[in-house]
Amino acid sequence: MRLTFTSEQRLDDGVLERTFTLGEIPGILWTPASASASTPTPLILVGHPGGLDKMYPRLAGRARHSAADGFAAATIELPGSGDRPRSAAAEQARADLRRALEAGEPVAEEIVDRLVLPLVEKAVPEWQAALDALLSLPEIDGPVGYSGGVIAIGTRLALVEPRISAAVLFAGSFVPRASFEEARQVTIPLHVLLQWDDEGNDRQAALDLFDAFGSKEKTLNANMGGHTGVPQFAGDAAAQFFTRHLK
Amino acid sequence: MRLTFTSEQRLDDGVLERTFTLGEIPGILWTPASASASTPTPLILVGHPGGLDKMYPRLAGRARHSAADGFAAATIELPGSGDRPRSAAAEQARADLRRALEAGEPVAEEIVDRLVLPLVEKAVPEWQAALDALLSLPEIDGPVGYSGGVIAIGTRLALVEPRISAAVLFAGSFVPRASFEEARQVTIPLHVLLQWDDEGNDRQAALDLFDAFGSKEKTLNANMGGHTGVPQFAGDAAAQFFTRHLK
Repeated sequence: MRLTFTSEQRLDDGVLERTFTLGEIPGILWTPASASASTPTPLILVGHPGGLDKMYPRLAGRARHSAADGFAAATIELPGSGDRPRSAAAEQARADLRRALEAGEPVAEEIVDRLVLPLVEKAVPEWQAALDALLSLPEIDGPVGYSGGVIAIGTRLALVEPRISAAVLFAGSFVPRASFEEARQVTIPLHVLLQWDDEGNDRQAALDLFDAFGSKEKTLNANMGGHTGVPQFAGDAAAQFFTRHLK
Repeated sequence: MRLTFTSEQRLDDGVLERTFTLGEIPGILWTPASASASTPTPLILVGHPGGLDKMYPRLAGRARHSAADGFAAATIELPGSGDRPRSAAAEQARADLRRALEAGEPVAEEIVDRLVLPLVEKAVPEWQAALDALLSLPEIDGPVGYSGGVIAIGTRLALVEPRISAAVLFAGSFVPRASFEEARQVTIPLHVLLQWDDEGNDRQAALDLFDAFGSKEKTLNANMGGHTGVPQFAGDAAAQFFTRHLK
């Protein structure tokens, strides 16, 4: 898929922010002021739950932190989010999930499977295509890290994409059964963030998934607060993890 | 109790290492080269499972790391360890514990209570007496952190000693039931280290204790490996926690 830049601005910290399309998929690339063809930078793929416009402030914050550490950062829209076409099946699964949560019922595994598995199937090849395009830019080379977003997508990418050499995973979304099996086969270094009191998250599932990962180096960093309350020092620890593994 | 220095040596990194006795209790104090009456340093109390001589290499390593960050570090021998008089009841409890472990049986709560509670009762006032003496030295002032060792001692100290303003706790020893109740009342910032595959440790009890702490700021930092395998980056993260809270 072809990457076409659609806008560019220089932020006040010198970071170059460029929007792009990858085929029909919108995305954003942030590169530190120092990045050039003669001094290319490692890359961090910045995951999110979908909805680039809504997520922009937090994504840009994470990207600028990464740029300050000497990394390029990039993200693309998820299938079915933002301006991308909706899938009727995903909308149905989302409605079923909402109904279960509002009724205070446990969320059936089959609902999670219907919601998350097709998303993983579609999104992972798109992130791999983004990686192809981004790594062909002269100012970017490896190694590559993946950070955050839907944990089932991060788990699959960590398993199938050999160019990703370390991942920060955010245990803050529903985990389909298939992810546990995939997790056992993951071997790259992992840093797993868990918000202990995340209202929309099953803490035990997050702990079980952490336990399942096959990686010899894996860290669970759990902190107080809800889904969006990751403390700054935990973000700093995740950044240090990437500095250890991508430099 | 009176603190009397019994030896002193300057280590190659400029750290001054002094052994002392506090009444009958042996101890060690490490101060960074920069510490003086005009520039006194914060203090970290360095906990351990008992047996200063055997623990010396690891304790000195942690203390020198702290000194490099600008902290004094001090430790004292635990009751019933090293050259200190044994308690028949504690020896009996330890033997009962060993028997249960060797038989592969679950360790009865009453054995843990018999082993740990009297130790907490005796040790905590001694660490407080050490704090009195150490804080009266001109080259040391607050704030004070507590780090590691028997987690029931750290929990009690975090609860009852107002001069301790932050604690790194090591979830690597048996937790008596009383500690869960005390944990709920702890409010100081905590950084809890857990070795995920610690053979002599009950992971679920460690997670339950982390959950119980009443502190608004608490971090669980879990890593792979056995009891003594805390990775260097996890030690660094604990050191950063103290720098955030004691400087």
